[in-house]
Amino acid sequence: MINIALDAMGGDYGSEPIVTGAIQALSEREDFILSLVGKRDEIEKYLLNLPKGLSNRITIIDASDVILMSDSATDVFKRRESSIYKAVELVKDGKAQAIVSAGHSGSTMSLATLRIGRLQNVSRPAIVALMPTQDGKRSVVLDVGANVDCKPEHLFQFGVMGEAYARKILKIDIPRIGLLSNGEEDSKGNEQTKESFKLLKKLSSFKGNVEGNNIFDGSVDVIVCDGFVGNLVLKTSEGVAETINYFIKKKIKKSPIAIAGALLMKKVFRLLRKEIDYAEYGGAPLLGLKSCVIISHGKSNAKAMKNSIFQAIAYVNANIESDIELQLKTKTTENIG
Amino acid sequence: MINIALDAMGGDYGSEPIVTGAIQALSEREDFILSLVGKRDEIEKYLLNLPKGLSNRITIIDASDVILMSDSATDVFKRRESSIYKAVELVKDGKAQAIVSAGHSGSTMSLATLRIGRLQNVSRPAIVALMPTQDGKRSVVLDVGANVDCKPEHLFQFGVMGEAYARKILKIDIPRIGLLSNGEEDSKGNEQTKESFKLLKKLSSFKGNVEGNNIFDGSVDVIVCDGFVGNLVLKTSEGVAETINYFIKKKIKKSPIAIAGALLMKKVFRLLRKEIDYAEYGGAPLLGLKSCVIISHGKSNAKAMKNSIFQAIAYVNANIESDIELQLKTKTTENIG
Repeated sequence: MINIALDAMGGDYGSEPIVTGAIQALSEREDFILSLVGKRDEIEKYLLNLPKGLSNRITIIDASDVILMSDSATDVFKRRESSIYKAVELVKDGKAQAIVSAGHSGSTMSLATLRIGRLQNVSRPAIVALMPTQDGKRSVVLDVGANVDCKPEHLFQFGVMGEAYARKILKIDIPRIGLLSNGEEDSKGNEQTKESFKLLKKLSSFKGNVEGNNIFDGSVDVIVCDGFVGNLVLKTSEGVAETINYFIKKKIKKSPIAIAGALLMKKVFRLLRKEIDYAEYGGAPLLGLKSCVIISHGKSNAKAMKNSIFQAIAYVNANIESDIELQLKTKTTENIG
Repeated sequence: MINIALDAMGGDYGSEPIVTGAIQALSEREDFILSLVGKRDEIEKYLLNLPKGLSNRITIIDASDVILMSDSATDVFKRRESSIYKAVELVKDGKAQAIVSAGHSGSTMSLATLRIGRLQNVSRPAIVALMPTQDGKRSVVLDVGANVDCKPEHLFQFGVMGEAYARKILKIDIPRIGLLSNGEEDSKGNEQTKESFKLLKKLSSFKGNVEGNNIFDGSVDVIVCDGFVGNLVLKTSEGVAETINYFIKKKIKKSPIAIAGALLMKKVFRLLRKEIDYAEYGGAPLLGLKSCVIISHGKSNAKAMKNSIFQAIAYVNANIESDIELQLKTKTTENIG
């Protein structure tokens, strides 16, 4: 039975949405158990009157310390009583198969990378964002923040890892990889992406350069970039969506006719929100480690936490780790360091 | 009287929207004249039955060659009969004060940079994008495509140039500059932006790092980045706006109630489009040259061309060139190469 180590602390809204999401997940699926890691008193508040069938599947691992968003990630290895440290140790010791955390993402990454370790031939783990596409699917964008300065061989590895994710988790038979660039022509790019292009060209799934808008139009399944660019793309996308939403609301307010129109369109707006809401798919997987790590948004609601847990189960079942190691072993040539 | 050298060829839709926009501009304002550069026969087709008052303000400069979007920019200096070459020469020879072109932007940049020349202490000209903000204004983002690989001193210069643009053209008394990064904290950034941060810190108008969403929320007036990142931000923004539009349309179609709602909201959607439509403000100024160059979108309609011409007039009247030279002379310190 899969055991998920769920960091019950550290999210922006405390333990409530995390534990609520956990209960929802347990109610909907029976193929996993949970280790809830955090302050016992805090966690138990939200577990009152739970049916035996569910409570039997929960183990509370008491942890007295919490790493806050405002904390630095530097002394995280010394804070062995923190919920995230203990969650990582559960996986390290083979007692759990996946970590889900909505806490300090830098700490989660550092701890998981150093305590659990990277897969063979993976130089750096990458954070994956799943972006909505016009065909109603998701595109895999990586890295979106783990690695700010990347070398071409890192981008090559992201390509291989992203392809494995698309194939094994999103069930896309033959994923297409694109390299995020400032134009579609082969000659486009900066020094970093031009070198990366040469390496990625060795993959049959590589379709060449793609532009920012191709993230959403379904022209490729996997979009490779460094963590600096990936973060900008993510934040810019959020900004545009928020701004459009803001403009619509502001302009509606000025006209009773428009208000009536908006009411009639309520369902459309709700479906749209669903389409672009990260809560629908959960968190961001950290790819390239020996075990599954799902980094949930700090502002995750119960639904986002539930879906993060489901994401972890799918990840563990897919056995993506051996796939990444095999692919990298086969595809890493002598000139990829 | 200001004379604008308007490249009448090379746009994606031929001369028609360009000449139509020119006539609209001439009808609305009397403080400028136009040199329409291109194939005389082609241009004259759209000038039939023009009132004398307008036709008197137009000079056609015959140019037999056109640089197409599919052409390489490499032999552009040899194609002296091309419309963009002749338009640039008009400014170089002092016969016109500004160039407006919807043609091959790489050619326009190369020709203008090398034939007209850069301002003192400007290493590289930068393309400016004017992005809509939630307070109904525009933020100045540069560079959005002229320079793919940039050094910290280039980003510093972009900051100074962008500030001058915001002050002199957008009439913002004390513009605030932000450096596009993967987080707001001073410690965030990649190698390039961390070094740039140190240089920009010398400007009193520098407010530190900003994130992708800050482009649209009005927290700063000028956003500095290299041309690779700027292009990605621009294309990603277009992609998100298009995708939201696509989703709304698709979901409306499935429900007669939603269609009715959309009809009532028609005005709101029109206002929204206006807010995010580049045609409303014209083209992208190329900052850092000795004369005004406005790069219009290849897909510009007549309104975008009209507004590009107005933008050129505002630019020429603002005398931004001497301001940039003065600011760079004052602010360029010994450690900025």
